[in-house]
Amino acid sequence: MVKKEFKVTPWEVSGDIDYNKLISQFGIQKLDSKLLNRIKKHTKNIHYMLRRKIFFANRDLNWLLDQYEKGNKFFLYTGRAPSGMIHLGHLIPWMFTKWLQDKFKVELWFQFPDEEKFLFKEKLTLEDTEKYLKENMLDVVALGFDPKKTHFLVDTLHAKLMYKQAIRVAKKITFSTVKATFGFNNQTNIGAIFYTAMQAVPAFLPSVLAKKNIPCLIPLGIDQDTHFRVARDVISKLGYYNPAIIHCRFMPSLQGPGKMSASEKETAIYTIDSPKTVEMKIKKYAFSGGQPTTKEHKEKGGNPDVDISYQYLTFLEESDKKLKRIYDDYKSGKLLTSELKQITIEKINSFLKKHQENRKKAKKKVDKFLHS
Amino acid sequence: MVKKEFKVTPWEVSGDIDYNKLISQFGIQKLDSKLLNRIKKHTKNIHYMLRRKIFFANRDLNWLLDQYEKGNKFFLYTGRAPSGMIHLGHLIPWMFTKWLQDKFKVELWFQFPDEEKFLFKEKLTLEDTEKYLKENMLDVVALGFDPKKTHFLVDTLHAKLMYKQAIRVAKKITFSTVKATFGFNNQTNIGAIFYTAMQAVPAFLPSVLAKKNIPCLIPLGIDQDTHFRVARDVISKLGYYNPAIIHCRFMPSLQGPGKMSASEKETAIYTIDSPKTVEMKIKKYAFSGGQPTTKEHKEKGGNPDVDISYQYLTFLEESDKKLKRIYDDYKSGKLLTSELKQITIEKINSFLKKHQENRKKAKKKVDKFLHS
Repeated sequence: MVKKEFKVTPWEVSGDIDYNKLISQFGIQKLDSKLLNRIKKHTKNIHYMLRRKIFFANRDLNWLLDQYEKGNKFFLYTGRAPSGMIHLGHLIPWMFTKWLQDKFKVELWFQFPDEEKFLFKEKLTLEDTEKYLKENMLDVVALGFDPKKTHFLVDTLHAKLMYKQAIRVAKKITFSTVKATFGFNNQTNIGAIFYTAMQAVPAFLPSVLAKKNIPCLIPLGIDQDTHFRVARDVISKLGYYNPAIIHCRFMPSLQGPGKMSASEKETAIYTIDSPKTVEMKIKKYAFSGGQPTTKEHKEKGGNPDVDISYQYLTFLEESDKKLKRIYDDYKSGKLLTSELKQITIEKINSFLKKHQENRKKAKKKVDKFLHS
Repeated sequence: MVKKEFKVTPWEVSGDIDYNKLISQFGIQKLDSKLLNRIKKHTKNIHYMLRRKIFFANRDLNWLLDQYEKGNKFFLYTGRAPSGMIHLGHLIPWMFTKWLQDKFKVELWFQFPDEEKFLFKEKLTLEDTEKYLKENMLDVVALGFDPKKTHFLVDTLHAKLMYKQAIRVAKKITFSTVKATFGFNNQTNIGAIFYTAMQAVPAFLPSVLAKKNIPCLIPLGIDQDTHFRVARDVISKLGYYNPAIIHCRFMPSLQGPGKMSASEKETAIYTIDSPKTVEMKIKKYAFSGGQPTTKEHKEKGGNPDVDISYQYLTFLEESDKKLKRIYDDYKSGKLLTSELKQITIEKINSFLKKHQENRKKAKKKVDKFLHS
């Protein structure tokens, strides 16, 4: 079967993504078992997102571990551009980031570039992004990051800190480069053109503030790699370490391949969805790998590899054993689609119950996370 | 005589400038006697820079006075991009701005875009601009602005206030526009492309802060008009008053027409020059309208219209009467070039003596001017 055309940019992800092709297009490296074992030396266990290749590629991770082993601790940097409510797909890399923070006991700089989507989406206002910023922060806090080791950077609020560093980056990037890298044209607005410089800043800002060079590791969805292909060149020219990157694939949309997207409401499960909404969305929209009839399903078995309910479990179910049993039972036809969907509904709802409780408590904590 | 080609952009001024041509190119209006009389109604007298058409053109000044007469006070906005020491040519529009502040009793927002020249000059560092920023502020304070009514805005220091407003502007300006307006190309860096949005901000920031629409008047060197040709469109789309502008011509360089430029040291008289340096510069470099020999000069007379020493007096000597006598005497040949130069040297040195005293005292005052 010929895969459909796909597109992966920081502002658009569409089609059936061929991750191997992205690896060669972007010039990044696979996360191989040798590297996973090297991580395990420090973390004792291997996170299920690594085992399952949800995090699947990297830049300079071996170098980062060299530094770490020499006693040169890194910091983590990831982020969220507010433009809507948070869905499960957003949480995935952050859950992994929390694990990294806990295991390596490192600082995390979490950027909220609240101007980005405003600049790229015609109709989005600054009132919108401010509203979503507040909502999105709650989801991040709810994941349990260490407030003493976590610094929220909001581009408009922390512009005094960031703008001066951004112009150092911007001076070294021509329009030609962003035109080729991001597909900009003459109609692109000058804020959008400048923006990538702001996204580069947290990768070296802690080094600026500490007045010493600190290695940086960026866990991110692979669509964001583009920014750092440009930024890494510049950051090293400014005399800082090139940030290392660890790349995550996308949680698919309910209806099948592609990325879970907040802009199409039926394709995503939001962190504030009620149990009933989750149930409805999975039952109504989640693409099934089952057979048309129960009889046929029992005879021929289902296809978990395309089944979205099963795919979601790979992102949320920590137990490999449980997951394998579900895989096998569905493939053999023993487990029906309705039963698989029920397992997924329960898994998501139990996850969200806890998340929503933490999200409520987060309102009182969020100020502790804002970088002063 | 055919005038040589000239060029006037915010980053380059060269050749023998034809101000009438600029008026039609830029689509601005002459400051006519009717408008001067309207100003006089409020200021009682007319500043010599208006009488001598050093300030010679405007945008929307009649509208601004309409507003003022209705009780809708304006604020002033001007600025300085630090990239070198201050010379006499820089002081001219600021001296006039101070007069406007005193006469109309209005607030002044003075921008120091300390990133601008860093972004446009390959070799200029942020350490350089920071050094010049401090020096340049002293010259502005030395002119005697009212600290209670004057707000210094430094782009990197006040970025928290400014960046959020700049992205509102930037979203409405395409690369196409800045390409055509500023002559940018694919090799222009993305910070330089964005910069004009930062320069637009002080024209409406006081309205944002006061949560009401306040008219703005920008006294500026005509090379800076370009920024506001772009910004005015956008500012009105954001719902604020279009800033009014009053345009100044350039103090010529010692060697003749064109603009006094800090990048060529022999062409400018700096505010920190010693009396001896001023004497040397005028004697050695100031282009003379005199005849080759004293005998010839006495017979044929000199040409004050091209004589730089005389031109400088038109920028600094407040008395029209004195100036006219010098003009007539030089033209008739009664006043020799060496004598004219001596008058100019004395005028500049007495001006600088006072300025340098005030500049020393400014060090203690400068903090009062920084917007909090």
